[in-house]
Amino acid sequence: MAIRFSEPVNAIKHSDTGDILKLIAQPDMISFAGGLPAEESFPADEIKKATEIVLNGDAGKALQYGPSLGYEPLRESIAKRMNRIVKTQYTKDNILITCGSQQGLDMLCRLFCNKGDTVIVEKPSYLGAITAFNLTQVNFVEIPGDGKGMIISELRKALETHDVRLIYIVTDFQNPTGITWTRERRAEFMQVVDEFEVPVIEDNPYGELRYEGEYLPSLTTFDTKNLVCSLGTFSKTFAPGFRLGWIAANPLFIEKLDLLKQNMDLSTAPFSQRVCETWLENFDFDAHVKSIIKLYKSRRDAMLKAIDEFFPKEVTHTYPEGGLFIWCTLPEQLKSRDILKQCIERKVAFVPGEAFFTSEGNTNFFRLNYSCNDEATIRDGIKRIADVLKENLK
Amino acid sequence: MAIRFSEPVNAIKHSDTGDILKLIAQPDMISFAGGLPAEESFPADEIKKATEIVLNGDAGKALQYGPSLGYEPLRESIAKRMNRIVKTQYTKDNILITCGSQQGLDMLCRLFCNKGDTVIVEKPSYLGAITAFNLTQVNFVEIPGDGKGMIISELRKALETHDVRLIYIVTDFQNPTGITWTRERRAEFMQVVDEFEVPVIEDNPYGELRYEGEYLPSLTTFDTKNLVCSLGTFSKTFAPGFRLGWIAANPLFIEKLDLLKQNMDLSTAPFSQRVCETWLENFDFDAHVKSIIKLYKSRRDAMLKAIDEFFPKEVTHTYPEGGLFIWCTLPEQLKSRDILKQCIERKVAFVPGEAFFTSEGNTNFFRLNYSCNDEATIRDGIKRIADVLKENLK
Repeated sequence: MAIRFSEPVNAIKHSDTGDILKLIAQPDMISFAGGLPAEESFPADEIKKATEIVLNGDAGKALQYGPSLGYEPLRESIAKRMNRIVKTQYTKDNILITCGSQQGLDMLCRLFCNKGDTVIVEKPSYLGAITAFNLTQVNFVEIPGDGKGMIISELRKALETHDVRLIYIVTDFQNPTGITWTRERRAEFMQVVDEFEVPVIEDNPYGELRYEGEYLPSLTTFDTKNLVCSLGTFSKTFAPGFRLGWIAANPLFIEKLDLLKQNMDLSTAPFSQRVCETWLENFDFDAHVKSIIKLYKSRRDAMLKAIDEFFPKEVTHTYPEGGLFIWCTLPEQLKSRDILKQCIERKVAFVPGEAFFTSEGNTNFFRLNYSCNDEATIRDGIKRIADVLKENLK
Repeated sequence: MAIRFSEPVNAIKHSDTGDILKLIAQPDMISFAGGLPAEESFPADEIKKATEIVLNGDAGKALQYGPSLGYEPLRESIAKRMNRIVKTQYTKDNILITCGSQQGLDMLCRLFCNKGDTVIVEKPSYLGAITAFNLTQVNFVEIPGDGKGMIISELRKALETHDVRLIYIVTDFQNPTGITWTRERRAEFMQVVDEFEVPVIEDNPYGELRYEGEYLPSLTTFDTKNLVCSLGTFSKTFAPGFRLGWIAANPLFIEKLDLLKQNMDLSTAPFSQRVCETWLENFDFDAHVKSIIKLYKSRRDAMLKAIDEFFPKEVTHTYPEGGLFIWCTLPEQLKSRDILKQCIERKVAFVPGEAFFTSEGNTNFFRLNYSCNDEATIRDGIKRIADVLKENLK
């Protein structure tokens, strides 16, 4: 067949991540590979009540087409909550509802970038963002961090050297590293960004899931030029099965995104949006988030404790104050893919780190997830990984 | 601000359609402008039961992330139904679930086209497809029809002259014209298409809503080279508020679309998919479609009757065997935009035809929708338009 696919589709590399995930999907495998929220955290009974309320109310409107910006009361609720938690000053006019954060990534790249444009990402960065941006065939410049956020001198150098169209970062409990940017680093970052006038995606899927310390302000609070586009999601605090997320940005961007959304899929499902908003209105979101924090905190603690107890001291790791992930660094001579193969034989799995880099190499890292296994399983799994690590370090 | 948007976003033209729609949204306006399904056609009570079943069952899975291809039982149901109604020979491996048909349009254009590629469309064609394809900055070649489908000699000429990457058509009760391609024309079309080996989007949002005559087979039944991608939707037969549609195509295309979908939004909402599938399983879809047909048929009949009674004979119109639209042609000296302005003063509205063309001109057409007004309102509205037409033809 003479069928020709588009350039971006032809350029999608076959990664072996899919193959790894299939291997991992065995029923007796302890998997720290995914990033799924725990199913026991979903408020299923409350959601049932919320859907009843929606369908007993104005069902016709809930089941009809809706505005591409999203359901207005939900946009308002999101703005208010962001203002309270991350100190923004948004109204509904700053919010557009998306089919999860992943769509936000695709939309923002389509909004700002053409083929060949340069995008700055953290080193390492979120895999789903890298693959989304690849659909626009952009080039990446990776900026390393120092545990407190991106190294600002490196950022400045990159902005002076490249014509940068977009910067993508995760400030809270980053995926994959679990690292959180300090308040000072946020301020310094925005000073440089505002100087160069480059739009920024502040991706914040886990921000509410903070297990210690206080919430830090959004980058927008340091932004004098309205450059920051924040991505949020209900996937970690409500349920991913609704595919509900949002973009928060200045109304000029939102206006353009509205046109994009209209042409991409008309709108996010009005029914799902109303169920979510009805849930927010009728139940205690804060209490629900607290219960998730309680669940995940004890899992994080169990994993950190087991790592400290069992892992050889040559393997270092990050300390996440929230979110879902711990990032481990192996001595350079070890390759995390080789370690994974041996781990899979012991029925335990994680994600090798290479996938989170846009540059080659970076073979001695791996990511651990702790949100969807109980404490005993976490301890058991970490011990199994530790055994493999010790054998390889003999 | 020095912000630069992407080329496709900069190229989105400000159309005055949005302004028109705002004008039309007055409460006392009789609007034949939209294309919405009637809210009274939504099976709200059944949907309530279906959501209960889903949430009383495996709620954890329904609320969790799901596969990017879609929920397997729903993909199977769609394949089976298509095989029965439009004589395809699909399995679940031919089906990917989308956030409505609009996303299918965006995805298929992204699958096959690069900037500057040529896409063949009918003259006129569906506005939402034209705007979706514009995001990839393609060039259009319009092929006129003769009331039985595209004129094949014109199609062949275009395929010989241009390097065509994609063909987009609506074979049943087209939007905007209401015209249906004959069986013979479908066969002739696919013979030429298979000769040139160009992928085809067969968009079929209204196919099930046939008010007379028998269902005609999908283009795939004439396709020897697996080129046809069919778009389907639950927006007209279930409820648009769920944003559920699908792409049916050969597994090679589906495999690539799966990768695209993963990067675009991970998947369509698993919760919505399960509610829809549970509804299909527990209730009588055929009987539901019949009830919608009954509702819309009498509205179509009322509109055709009123047109024949009131419109001046210089204004011609199509006869839709199904779907939602009638297409009217004015004498060339009249401009439908001028007529619309006068109609809005009489509190009645329609969509001027220009928006459905990719070429300039085409000012003497307009589209009427009959699905969301009752018979008396339809009669009243058509009479008001007729009065304006008569005044302009004096």
